[in-house]
Amino acid sequence: MTVSTTGVPRVGSLPTGPLDSIADLAGVTVGHCTLVDAGVQTGVTVIRPHGGDPYRDKVPAAATVLNGFGKSIGLVQVDELGVLETPVALTNTFSVGAVAQAQIRAAVAANPEIGRALPTVNPLVFECNDGYLNDIQRMAVEGSHYEAALAGAGQAVAQGAVGAGRGMSAFGVKGGIGSASRLAGGYCVGALVLANFGTAESLTVAGRLVGPDLAQRLAQPDTVAQPEKGSIIMILATDAPLDARQLRRLSLRAGAGLARTGSVFGHGSGDIALAFSTAYTVPHDAVRPMPAVAMLHETRLDPLFRAAADSVEQAILHALWHAAPVQGRDGHGRRALLDVMPELGRTA
Amino acid sequence: MTVSTTGVPRVGSLPTGPLDSIADLAGVTVGHCTLVDAGVQTGVTVIRPHGGDPYRDKVPAAATVLNGFGKSIGLVQVDELGVLETPVALTNTFSVGAVAQAQIRAAVAANPEIGRALPTVNPLVFECNDGYLNDIQRMAVEGSHYEAALAGAGQAVAQGAVGAGRGMSAFGVKGGIGSASRLAGGYCVGALVLANFGTAESLTVAGRLVGPDLAQRLAQPDTVAQPEKGSIIMILATDAPLDARQLRRLSLRAGAGLARTGSVFGHGSGDIALAFSTAYTVPHDAVRPMPAVAMLHETRLDPLFRAAADSVEQAILHALWHAAPVQGRDGHGRRALLDVMPELGRTA
Amino acid sequence: MTVSTTGVPRVGSLPTGPLDSIADLAGVTVGHCTLVDAGVQTGVTVIRPHGGDPYRDKVPAAATVLNGFGKSIGLVQVDELGVLETPVALTNTFSVGAVAQAQIRAAVAANPEIGRALPTVNPLVFECNDGYLNDIQRMAVEGSHYEAALAGAGQAVAQGAVGAGRGMSAFGVKGGIGSASRLAGGYCVGALVLANFGTAESLTVAGRLVGPDLAQRLAQPDTVAQPEKGSIIMILATDAPLDARQLRRLSLRAGAGLARTGSVFGHGSGDIALAFSTAYTVPHDAVRPMPAVAMLHETRLDPLFRAAADSVEQAILHALWHAAPVQGRDGHGRRALLDVMPELGRTA
Amino acid sequence: MTVSTTGVPRVGSLPTGPLDSIADLAGVTVGHCTLVDAGVQTGVTVIRPHGGDPYRDKVPAAATVLNGFGKSIGLVQVDELGVLETPVALTNTFSVGAVAQAQIRAAVAANPEIGRALPTVNPLVFECNDGYLNDIQRMAVEGSHYEAALAGAGQAVAQGAVGAGRGMSAFGVKGGIGSASRLAGGYCVGALVLANFGTAESLTVAGRLVGPDLAQRLAQPDTVAQPEKGSIIMILATDAPLDARQLRRLSLRAGAGLARTGSVFGHGSGDIALAFSTAYTVPHDAVRPMPAVAMLHETRLDPLFRAAADSVEQAILHALWHAAPVQGRDGHGRRALLDVMPELGRTA
Repeated sequence: MTVSTTGVPRVGSLPTGPLDSIADLAGVTVGHCTLVDAGVQTGVTVIRPHGGDPYRDKVPAAATVLNGFGKSIGLVQVDELGVLETPVALTNTFSVGAVAQAQIRAAVAANPEIGRALPTVNPLVFECNDGYLNDIQRMAVEGSHYEAALAGAGQAVAQGAVGAGRGMSAFGVKGGIGSASRLAGGYCVGALVLANFGTAESLTVAGRLVGPDLAQRLAQPDTVAQPEKGSIIMILATDAPLDARQLRRLSLRAGAGLARTGSVFGHGSGDIALAFSTAYTVPHDAVRPMPAVAMLHETRLDPLFRAAADSVEQAILHALWHAAPVQGRDGHGRRALLDVMPELGRTA
Repeated sequence: MTVSTTGVPRVGSLPTGPLDSIADLAGVTVGHCTLVDAGVQTGVTVIRPHGGDPYRDKVPAAATVLNGFGKSIGLVQVDELGVLETPVALTNTFSVGAVAQAQIRAAVAANPEIGRALPTVNPLVFECNDGYLNDIQRMAVEGSHYEAALAGAGQAVAQGAVGAGRGMSAFGVKGGIGSASRLAGGYCVGALVLANFGTAESLTVAGRLVGPDLAQRLAQPDTVAQPEKGSIIMILATDAPLDARQLRRLSLRAGAGLARTGSVFGHGSGDIALAFSTAYTVPHDAVRPMPAVAMLHETRLDPLFRAAADSVEQAILHALWHAAPVQGRDGHGRRALLDVMPELGRTA
Repeated sequence: MTVSTTGVPRVGSLPTGPLDSIADLAGVTVGHCTLVDAGVQTGVTVIRPHGGDPYRDKVPAAATVLNGFGKSIGLVQVDELGVLETPVALTNTFSVGAVAQAQIRAAVAANPEIGRALPTVNPLVFECNDGYLNDIQRMAVEGSHYEAALAGAGQAVAQGAVGAGRGMSAFGVKGGIGSASRLAGGYCVGALVLANFGTAESLTVAGRLVGPDLAQRLAQPDTVAQPEKGSIIMILATDAPLDARQLRRLSLRAGAGLARTGSVFGHGSGDIALAFSTAYTVPHDAVRPMPAVAMLHETRLDPLFRAAADSVEQAILHALWHAAPVQGRDGHGRRALLDVMPELGRTA
Repeated sequence: MTVSTTGVPRVGSLPTGPLDSIADLAGVTVGHCTLVDAGVQTGVTVIRPHGGDPYRDKVPAAATVLNGFGKSIGLVQVDELGVLETPVALTNTFSVGAVAQAQIRAAVAANPEIGRALPTVNPLVFECNDGYLNDIQRMAVEGSHYEAALAGAGQAVAQGAVGAGRGMSAFGVKGGIGSASRLAGGYCVGALVLANFGTAESLTVAGRLVGPDLAQRLAQPDTVAQPEKGSIIMILATDAPLDARQLRRLSLRAGAGLARTGSVFGHGSGDIALAFSTAYTVPHDAVRPMPAVAMLHETRLDPLFRAAADSVEQAILHALWHAAPVQGRDGHGRRALLDVMPELGRTA
């Protein structure tokens, strides 16, 4: 048994939220739909920012593209309007279109005048390439899988080789979904990552460089010599009252946590961070009053910046610690990190 | 008969290319697939940047988002890498996902190792909302329509209510596809627009404000009072040797042409410009040599900037002049501009 | 007598504020210091966003760089923090440093702990190149000139060849300072421009292309053939409650007004727009409460976008109409537009 | 004696250049002018990108603003045009204006028609706030200091409390100038940093968190509790043939190196990276031919990205290891890191 919630090295000195996951933010829930069928090792993960309809009650949000080797949909409008209006969806690279269509259908189902009397809706789907384990060309993800992930969303956040993380690899071993949270400055910052990045040689665990050892044990010199591929999607949520400009600042700090694990934001890695706030919503209808929110004073952001970096780094470790080994297409497999380096599970 | 290629006011003083369309750029071809079936009034338009495989021979490109109320896919990677690697596709807002999937399939068909030994491919699909005429909720566009548009691409560029332009509206009348070109500084700049923007009251034709008259004749005070909706996608091509930074500069100048027609880049209008160069390509394979191109000296860009603005403005007029009236869903219809203001066809 | 406030063509259909200037925004004042001494034809213009200390009560602001051929100081921090904390200063290209130092000194004088117990202050200085008329190499502007402009700030906005506008040229004739305002959507948008851009041949006055005629009368074929040089700085103020993201959107619309006058945002022209709101301020001290402001609903921005475009276009015309002829260095002179085309003053 | 070139922990596994400094790039030289006079503890550092005139032979360059709490001048034009045209200057926050004026004067001296027949020149000055040690309000830096730094530029790069680094602090101890280089992918990447950032508690040396120990020994709980202030400027040079877009990508990777030292890009820290290439230049004069350069294939960037991150991290360590203690204004002093933690000098 390699999946363990114990023995994960603890990043930083900030306290965690009760769940040490993005679900520590009130109202935020996470759901997965995992597809496992021989060469199909993939799925969908959904983050609901609140329990209502995000088209009607839009969620302040902003993103940072650390490295834009990525095929997401939805960021153009998030950049312009500073809100998201659907749940956040994660999946594999070739399934963005299918999931986006499903998001549109779900929004229309809730608001039948979308695209008619109401404006259209902005799907928001991020991706990583799970093509090493998953037969991505089969485009196995369908709209029903998005719906299933959405329907199953709850406070318990399964991690590792689940949902969109099913087929993902990181540092030459099995990657996937990880989540964590930190309390700082009177607020909570939670992170959920889809980890599919990093060369074995560069892995750094809570400040300790274990990559060269890992690479040697994997006996995959070709992997070691390869450039960073894959990608990482980093979703941050906070209950601090931040506007879109501040959320963009917060999202950038995901990069600090990512860098500490050994990444240099490699050329072929789509490294994207999105941050949203649960402190208020923005009404779709102009006749409803806009919220009169006192945003956080800029000088009080620093603890949140650290919380963002720490929770992203921690979430990456959680992904590695939770990820069970997966055998995928054409004899490709990924071992669990703790199977390769069992001492990591003991030393923390 | 309202569709006329004659009588279109001529924008600016620069000479046009032989075709006065984006197909004046050697290798650039355009194809449409038009869907007409009662409430379904929509389609797909494809611009092929060259006759080869853009995944193998990538095309230098860059974009400017003047107003990001839009749901395109592909710009994150174009921004990062400065190239496009599929044909440029245009369609309605709810069909981006379907067309993106079709682009992936087409790329995989040509390069079976994409998503396996080869990296994934970046679909590039732009959209406008044709929901006034088209029953957009039916999501009538399928992958086969993209393939049909691609297969039919040629030098003859049909304009008006064709392809992605079938259901589009502009200035309270029928909009759609328009194209134009200008020669300047020893090079050619061509534009193709998907025009679905503008309030009747603001229409300005080659410097002459005809909007208030148009609005009165349309007898649609509700339309007049409405804010700018819809969107406009503006694709520019040039044979000047420009790098991605210079192409981004060129793409911004589309906004000058757009503004002259009466737009102020309205809140609800996704106004996006993309520029690409046909002067060279970038090989996918690192083993092939990179092109040693002497880029255009920065101070020689000004004529091209004017050509970009003029060709976009001209292309918008072409869209209006060519667009035949369309009856769409639920009794919604759009008249042709020249049917409402026939004197415009004579005075030019 | 060529300076006239009458006979200026009126742009658009929106009503103007009482002063038709940026000073229609309550609290906004403008001051000039004009240097005239043979080859020295330059100066400083200052816009005070409110009557208090902008370091203590920071002003929400954001900018759009339409074309970055410019040497301003201060935008990096405005982009990050979404506020300005000094008055906005305009001057010639080679005097940015001197004015920035003066801004620092003024801020320190008001807050002696700046750079010690208090953080530093962010100078904000924009510039255009008046080197055709002004002996810019003499760097004649000193800190005292900034102080004089600041001390003289009031509601009456002198226009034309004053302050930073003293040595500026536009469309081959005399340019300089212009201001205007428009009322829309229940709010006011005011503009102040430093106009130093445009080729004679491209001048378009309220939709009418007069440039070719102007160029012919100027009998300056070299000027006509030259690319766009100079620059334009466009400062927008509004009393609408907008956050930095929304102000950035507003600032972009200055480009629509600019384009209508004939500009294509030429390569050599630093075309920069800054927008700020007078609806609220952000306290420097974290112990003071942050303002709980209900921002304007996004769908209510459209009238303000039109007001921004119209007021910028109008302000450019005001600059041209007010600008008296100036003789500068080495026999260089610029005529007033109305001296070259007197019928423009009559036909409006 | 605390200044030591030995005993510095070595970052990463890439080989260094012969000098392990930015001067490993052929033609790149560095000069300092250091001002030491009681409360005045400041200076100027200049990086010359090549031995010629950068106005005539412009240098491809691009920047990333990780956190824009900074008052640099020049980035607007670098972003637009992708070149720098002066040496890169570093100084304190209140001296940007003075140094910018000096850069203009130097450019005019070399090209007397600048601002007349020739376009203006774009000064490029970065800053950090050395106000803890230096009486920054005295604005002690003058144009002559820039000239002195420029005149003294050479291949030997003094590090630590010299030039612009004289008054800088980092991690609660003495910071300043550091430089390093790495060889990767057949090219060299060199870094020079002006390190004035970081809380003691967060210091991480080559992967080892020593901050809590450092903070305790400093017995400065107020320092520990304080947010990140100061700033860091990171200048990267490479001999790889990269265009501006690629250089922007390279510059972003400075952030990975910075993060590894403990930074989360704190709110009050102006964290800016600039990268330039020495592989080719761009002629000012349009009559001279543009260079026909085959840029590096995008997939070959990864080794350079790692080199950038590693050389920045190494340069920060070099700054800390070289920085002698400084007593500054009002009894403020900063100790050398190795005086506080002498074991760091032995354990490497």
